Parts: sequence; C-alpha cells; structure tokens
Amino acid sequence: MVQKGLFERLAQYRETDFYPYHMPGHKRKRLGALPEELTGIDITEIDGFDNLHQAKGILLDLQREASRMYGADETFYLINGSTGGILSAVSAAVPEGGHLLMARGCHRSAYHAAYLRRLKTSYLIPPPVEGFEFYEAVNAEEVEQALKADPDIGAVLIVSPTYEGRIADVRAIVKTVHRYGIPLIVDEAHGAHLGFAPRFAEGSCTCGADLVIHSVHKTLPALTQTALLHVNGDLIDRDRLRRFLHIYQSSSPSYVLMAGIGDALDIVADRGRERFERFRILYDRLINHLKECKNLRFIPVRDVEQGRQDVGKLVIAAKNLSVPGKWIYDTLREKYHLQCEMAAGGYCLAMFTIADEEDAYCRMEQALLEMDRELSKERPGKAAEVFLPPPVVVCSLAEAWDGGWEIAELSYAVGHPSADFVNLYPPGCPILAPGELVTEEICRLLGEYHARKLTLQGVVLEQEKLYLKILRET
Amino acid sequence: MVQKGLFERLAQYRETDFYPYHMPGHKRKRLGALPEELTGIDITEIDGFDNLHQAKGILLDLQREASRMYGADETFYLINGSTGGILSAVSAAVPEGGHLLMARGCHRSAYHAAYLRRLKTSYLIPPPVEGFEFYEAVNAEEVEQALKADPDIGAVLIVSPTYEGRIADVRAIVKTVHRYGIPLIVDEAHGAHLGFAPRFAEGSCTCGADLVIHSVHKTLPALTQTALLHVNGDLIDRDRLRRFLHIYQSSSPSYVLMAGIGDALDIVADRGRERFERFRILYDRLINHLKECKNLRFIPVRDVEQGRQDVGKLVIAAKNLSVPGKWIYDTLREKYHLQCEMAAGGYCLAMFTIADEEDAYCRMEQALLEMDRELSKERPGKAAEVFLPPPVVVCSLAEAWDGGWEIAELSYAVGHPSADFVNLYPPGCPILAPGELVTEEICRLLGEYHARKLTLQGVVLEQEKLYLKILRET
Repeated sequence: MVQKGLFERLAQYRETDFYPYHMPGHKRKRLGALPEELTGIDITEIDGFDNLHQAKGILLDLQREASRMYGADETFYLINGSTGGILSAVSAAVPEGGHLLMARGCHRSAYHAAYLRRLKTSYLIPPPVEGFEFYEAVNAEEVEQALKADPDIGAVLIVSPTYEGRIADVRAIVKTVHRYGIPLIVDEAHGAHLGFAPRFAEGSCTCGADLVIHSVHKTLPALTQTALLHVNGDLIDRDRLRRFLHIYQSSSPSYVLMAGIGDALDIVADRGRERFERFRILYDRLINHLKECKNLRFIPVRDVEQGRQDVGKLVIAAKNLSVPGKWIYDTLREKYHLQCEMAAGGYCLAMFTIADEEDAYCRMEQALLEMDRELSKERPGKAAEVFLPPPVVVCSLAEAWDGGWEIAELSYAVGHPSADFVNLYPPGCPILAPGELVTEEICRLLGEYHARKLTLQGVVLEQEKLYLKILRET
Repeated sequence: MVQKGLFERLAQYRETDFYPYHMPGHKRKRLGALPEELTGIDITEIDGFDNLHQAKGILLDLQREASRMYGADETFYLINGSTGGILSAVSAAVPEGGHLLMARGCHRSAYHAAYLRRLKTSYLIPPPVEGFEFYEAVNAEEVEQALKADPDIGAVLIVSPTYEGRIADVRAIVKTVHRYGIPLIVDEAHGAHLGFAPRFAEGSCTCGADLVIHSVHKTLPALTQTALLHVNGDLIDRDRLRRFLHIYQSSSPSYVLMAGIGDALDIVADRGRERFERFRILYDRLINHLKECKNLRFIPVRDVEQGRQDVGKLVIAAKNLSVPGKWIYDTLREKYHLQCEMAAGGYCLAMFTIADEEDAYCRMEQALLEMDRELSKERPGKAAEVFLPPPVVVCSLAEAWDGGWEIAELSYAVGHPSADFVNLYPPGCPILAPGELVTEEICRLLGEYHARKLTLQGVVLEQEKLYLKILRET
C-alpha cells in the first residue's frame, strides 16, 4: 500500500518553500480563473516525484498498487485516455503488417492502431441484443471459428463491457485464444469497476487476458482522459509495450490527471465495498420500480443477474419502436434536467457509478415513470434495420486510407472500396472502414439515416445530397 | 473574442440542477482527496459544450481566438502535449515512407513519428554554442545545403527556441524551405510566449512557418500536458492533419486541461503586455546583477538583445569546466530550495515566466552570487568532448527498431548498426538512433559518460559493464 496518496504529496509539496524555476509556466500560482487548488498541484518531473515513462518512485508504487487491486502482473497509468492504451496494446501485441482479429464494435483507436501498424484486420460480429439496436459482446464460439479459419491471426481484441454494457465471457475467450498461442486484448474501458464487489462481473485480468485497458474516468471517480493498462503473462514483450506507451503518450504527463487516478483507486480501496454494495441496492430498486412501465423498456434485469449486462448502464427504449432514442434523451434533459450519456437511433443510455446518491436514482425513476405514462400507447412500429452483413475487405486499412480518392454519388460508389470511415455518431462503430466494399445494402441504409437526419460522419454532403469517398482507380 | 472563458462556463454549469448520468464517474463531486474545484468542472462532451475532435461551439471559438493571438490560419487545442502535436504535424506533412529533414536535437516524438510513418530521416546538426555543451538553433544555410543535396526531402522540422533557449532565424528558414515547395514545421514548444511583447523574439506563425507547435504549459501559465498546433498556408492537407490529431489524442479530452489553455491565453490577452514588460525588466536586472560573478557564467546578454536567446531560460555554468551542472543544480536545490528545470553535464537550466514575481529573481540572484563567492577559483579545466560527427545512417529507423537485435560489448558493437536509441537523460537528444552506425568515437564517449555516472538511456548494464543493442545480422 502506498503510504500517502499522490494528491496529498503534491498538496504537501505546495506548502514548502521550494521555488519552481521549471515548468509549468504558472509556477503553481493562481493567475487567472483556474483555482490554486488546481495549479498548486500541477508539477513536472521534479526531484522527489517521478517520471511516468520510467517510473521508479511514487508512480511505480501507485502502479503496483493498481496491479494488486486488479490482479494484474503489471499496470501502467495512462494520461492519454484508453485511446493511448489501445494504440499501445495493439502495436505491442501484433508485429507490423500482422493480422488482428477484432470486434467490429471496437473503439476508433483500434482501427487507428491497425492503420498505423499496417495490420490486416478481420472482424468479430456478434449477434444483436434481442429487441435492441445494438450488438451483444463477442462470444467464444465466434472467436474459435475465426481463429480456425485464419491461422495467421496474431492477436485478438474484444470489447467488454460494450458501450451499452454487454459483458463477454472473457474466461472462455481467453481459453480459446490461448489455445492458439496468441494474446487476447480486452478493451475493458467501460469496466474499471468490475470485480470490486460481489454481484459485479469479474474483471478481465483475473480471467487471464493478456492486455486489459480500463478508462478509470468512465466508471470510477477519476478525471476525464485517465486510464490504466494491465499486462499479464508472457505473451506480450514488455519492452515493446513500454516503447509504444512512450510513443503515444505525452512526455509531459499531467500530475493532476495522475493524482486523479490514484485518488479514484484509493476511494475504491478504502470505501469500495460499502459503496459498491449500496450502488447495487439502489440500482436493483430502480430497475424493480421501473417494471411498472408500460411504454418504456430497459435491458432485462435477468441479464444483469446473469452477469451479461453491466449494472452501470441503463439502456432506455420505447416499446413503440418508432420513438427515437434522441426523443427520450432530449425529454430527460429538457424537461427534467437529467443529462444522459448518449442517444442512438433507438435507445438512450444513462450511466450510474458509486458516486451516485439515492437522489440520482429517484430523479431518474420519477422522470421515467412520468414519461412512461405520457407516452402514447400506439402499437409497436417496425424498428429500423441497422444490422449489416459482414464487411467485404478489398484492401488493407492503411492502403485505402493513404490512397488516392474521389467523391462519388451513392449509386456510383457501389462496388468500389471506401476511402474513409463512415459511421453514425453516436455510437461511432464503422458502417464502412477504408478498403471495404460499398454495397447496395449499405447505400440504402445510409440513405435512410440521412432521411432521418441522423449525424453521419465520413460522408460528403453537397446541397443535401449524399456522396462517399471511394478509392480512385489507378 | 470569446464572450466568457471555458473555465467560467464550466463553473457556471456546475451550479445548475442538471444531473450527470454520464461520464466521468465522479459525477462532479468530491469523493476522495481531489477538491470539488477540480471534479466540479471535469465534464465530457455534453450538450451545451463541444467535441474537440469536431469542434463547432465553444472549442471552435477558443481555437479561433488562439489563431488570432498567434497570427495563425487555424489552431488546434492539444491535450496530449506537444508530443501529440509533433506526431500529428510530421505524419500530416510527409507521406508514408517519405523523407524528413530534421534538427538532430528534436524531441523524441519527432523520431517516433519517423518510426511510425517509416520515414527516411536526415539531420541538421548546427554548431555548438561557444563555450557551452549544447547546440545552436538550426540556421538557414545548413537547411539550404541539405535541401540542395537531397531533392526527395518532403518536409523540414526544426526546434526553436531549443530547450536551452537558442532561437532560430525562422523567417530566413521559411524562405529557404518554401523555395523548395515543401513545408516547414517548427517545434516551438518552448516559445508559446514569443511575439506577445516588444523585445521578445517573433513567433514562428508570423514568420510564415506551415506548422507550429506550442507547449502552452512550458512558458505560459497553463496546465501541464497542454499545447497548441497552428497551421498556415496551403502546403498542409488540413483533413489529413485532423486525421492524425484524432489518432494521436484521446477521444475523451479533458475539459480541465482545455479550460487551462483558454485561461492561459486569456491572461495573455488581458494582462500580457504589462506582465511581459515587467518580466523583461526583472530578467534584465537579474542578468545585470549577475555580471559581477567571477566563477559562474551565463548565456551572454548580447544574445538576448539580438533575439538569438530566449529570455525565459537562464543557462548557468561554472567557468571552471570541471564543475558539473548537476552540482549547480543540487546546490541551488538543497541549500537554497530553488528547484531548477534540469542539469546537463556542464550546465544547469532555470526557467522564468510571466508568473514569476520579484521575489523569484531576488532569491535566484542572491543564491547565485553567494555560490559564486564560494566556488573555488581554480583555473578552468577541460570540458568533456560531447560533440560528435554526424551520424552514419545504415538503415531506416523503422527497419532497425523493429528488427532482431542482440546485446554486444562496446568493442564488438563498433561497426554495427544500433538497434535502439541511446542518449543521456537529460537532455535526451540521441547519441545513437536505431539504424545508425556504432563508431569508436561514440563508444569512447559512452564509456566516459558511464565513468562519470551520468544517466545513459538505451544501454544495457550488466555487472557495471556497458553493452549496446545492435542489429542482429540476418
């Protein structure tokens, strides 16, 4: 256990008479609007503190403490978010030009890593969650199938929990992947809280995943842009991993962000048990009370009980499938001043953590029960068809994204490889990645999204008409 | 002008009754040691705020305000430090596999960009500063020579001011580089304060550089890990630049860091003139008083007057060349509680900014005058020979860093290409980069450093003996 938290050490140093003839330029004072509580603890790698990129002192101690908490062999504090962790993990796990098997629903940074390292990519596309417009987490069977079909795959990357809270059977997937002698990376950005209390799903480190990325700010009380990378076993070259962490992260890491990571983990270590228990009780009560809703529906409680759905995420949808997620989101925000995490086409997502008190649950419950009563009881309409067949990869991401391109109308684009990412935002999962074939089905879907005025990224709009970037024939 | 600062907008939002069912997990409360002044303003991309990676609201306004202040065409807030800016600038300016002409003293991130993008690298090695163990900034003549010799160079990257404060004639270098129709990138990380007051050197944006990177935390009162990237003219593909900014920076950018950038620029806009004037007066007085030193020496005032040396950096060395920089640094720290920025072999570096009050100058002055009296007046010894001939590049950085390697004794390593970076820390400028020939001269220097117990990075130490990683012959 670290004797004293990083924040306290910084606050204590602030009280000494040591004068800073070094960065940062505010010299630990308040000069403008930023309070001295903030500038006062914002230091650089001075004597008595530590260098994140070669931790030997307090940062090494803190990272070791994080390893112990998560049951990891080694842990790194990250200050460029899970983005930096995923870029580093993929770059370290697969040699340049290698082959990565990844969940299609991966964060954009996984695609970016594939681009930078010129990887061949194959995708795991799990089935949709019944009745909802999003996907399940990846399962061991499809991983097995993919690995059997492609003997040159060098690593597997999955997401669990997903943005919507779906949890994979990581233990089973680890077993499968290790049978092929390659590493499993789990983007557990949304699961830094897992494993800390009974009735919460297990964390991926204890399941034996080789690399695990946690966004501490997402589900624990840490500052935005902070994360952890854990490494286990000996399938990952640690020097190579350090190289990429050094490459993708600032050489001036923020002590404020790092103190925030330490503080969040201290809270879990000191009061986590009690906090998580209360979290679960409040969440269960909310879900129980929401059962009386006639027009709104939620991710089934059964999935939570079975550990397939994360407690921290409440997926809210209408039974009438024509009610958009954005309507739920906007109503909660405008009428009740409840700001949710996101709205997708057919649902809205709210997040709960150990920082929420009873009041947070009561306000959400009352708002949802009231909305439920006011929602018209029309018969369910038809949901938009959002699930596409697997992408047809024509050339590698790097070749296509760095290649020459031209703008094409949808009808002309069909049959050509895309030269850019195309996605709805949110959630951001690619409909097309560079190098993937534009199909009639995709164009129809894009046209529908456009008509529904959803935010499409990676397309070109000219006079309200939709165009795509396709690879220029050479 | 932005109507209200980002910090104030965040503080105001904190006072509303909007409840966060979104990240970050602290829900804007104080749960542990972090004060609510900090967690209270730490939000994510919620309604009413903005998305750094697709700025349309307040962040776009703030970035435009920064452009106006620096005279840039377009400016990006950076939250992964200048590291993210240099990676992005180099990646956008040179096609994959292209050729980059760079100052040998570039930050490690420039080498990392060359590695990731598989660039061929050539180096600009300016002459040493007379009587000091570090280099001048790059000059236009050597740039001209290099560009004439190598017609396939795709971009030029220089550092100005250098870590030690040497300022290049950017106007002349821009002219030279543009004559070859290629872009100039200026790593102006140490010069975010330039151009804001008379008697300070001009900033590189007004000199016409195509890409300019500023660490706002280094020389302005901003939080650590914050920076700006400016782009000018039409030699840089803006979409490509945005792509790489998106790749190298967290998709969860910290509003605390961004508010800190805005705050620092507000301070400059509101009170900069007066602050910089006082800064200059206090600095001049210090330098003037230090003229009575008999045993300590400083970067000549003449260079400051001529705009070749930055006011913010005070280089302190002993006339007796055998007095190590570390001794000066340690004495200032231990005896006077003055924490300097860094100590290199033969000098110590102190930084001043607009945040320093008179007391900061007085404490430094008194300490240095006292140290000067106590330093023995031995005759100057011989300085260590730290300047090496230009590196011999055998193969590209990427080939060598990703290649197979073996450990070799120094005598065996001679004549082989290095498989890793080797450098003194600080300052971190490579003695060897991957793919460069190990020479007898280099081995002799490494041996000397090792004997002097300086911190060598990238070497292997076994039982106090020095080994190098060299490329394995295939």
